[in-house]
Amino acid sequence: MSIESLQSHLRVVPDFPKKGIQFYDITTLFKDAQCIRELEDILYEQYKDKGITKVVGIESRGFLLGAALAIRLGAGFVLARKPGKLPAETVQVSYQKEYGSDTIEIHKDAITEDDVVLLHDDLLATGGTMVAALELVNQFKPKASYVSFIIELVCEGLHGRDAFPEGTDLYTIMTLG
Amino acid sequence: MSIESLQSHLRVVPDFPKKGIQFYDITTLFKDAQCIRELEDILYEQYKDKGITKVVGIESRGFLLGAALAIRLGAGFVLARKPGKLPAETVQVSYQKEYGSDTIEIHKDAITEDDVVLLHDDLLATGGTMVAALELVNQFKPKASYVSFIIELVCEGLHGRDAFPEGTDLYTIMTLG
Repeated sequence: MSIESLQSHLRVVPDFPKKGIQFYDITTLFKDAQCIRELEDILYEQYKDKGITKVVGIESRGFLLGAALAIRLGAGFVLARKPGKLPAETVQVSYQKEYGSDTIEIHKDAITEDDVVLLHDDLLATGGTMVAALELVNQFKPKASYVSFIIELVCEGLHGRDAFPEGTDLYTIMTLG
Repeated sequence: MSIESLQSHLRVVPDFPKKGIQFYDITTLFKDAQCIRELEDILYEQYKDKGITKVVGIESRGFLLGAALAIRLGAGFVLARKPGKLPAETVQVSYQKEYGSDTIEIHKDAITEDDVVLLHDDLLATGGTMVAALELVNQFKPKASYVSFIIELVCEGLHGRDAFPEGTDLYTIMTLG
């Protein structure tokens, strides 16, 4: 299955979540048995030789392929969540959004210095949440960290890739304008 | 790996999310590469011969094994979400909770009459959300529907299994008191 074919399974929803926003709906990719398998295959091929020991998925659409990928890679899975949802002791980081700020956290015992970490989310737009999650993960001083998305959104005034520290290993399956 | 060994990887958090509640934290199971793989294996073995074509995961911890299981079973994955998060046309159902009511929805084009559906979430407590999700799924008149959880919580005054319509095919990996 080609990237073009995957793209053709995306649903574009105008004016969601608010007027003027064109929303790429990945649920139509996920409900298709061949597409969801292909997405996993592509990410598996990309990371199978990296020695990944933990996959960190960003709540909540990052949980979808994140956990599947962890199992396929023989790694553990770690949940990065909004505040108050993880029951044990956490580390957290706050970051600026368009309006106000937001916080993301993971359990304090979720990652160690021996881990090789792959962070995953579905969509790279401004990159704010993932940059914060990467900062959080790197506080644990893992051997290496990688960042992956299904979709990278690039248009005038939006180039989320630039928000990451230089040298970040970032991979996206498809780029949309 | 035995069920007892899986259980020993669970973390029990007292007084979360509120005083008096003993919370079973599955994140310690998921971060362990062997445990998460074993959970998927058990569910795969349970459903591999049922002809499952769609797995429905309940937001958000049901997304974790739900999507992985869909891929393993060669099925598509459908997100059951809280209101306002799915971008296209949805069907929804409301249900009573301890205090007030809640609503769950899925996309209108997510399931057809040709589907064999497996619903999945992490924890069966009162069963309220899953009973509503099952009702929603059955509105599509699929060929068959199955319900699965990782943990079934049974204690005095709590027996969520009884909340389901008679004849519901319900499977849980482990029962905790």
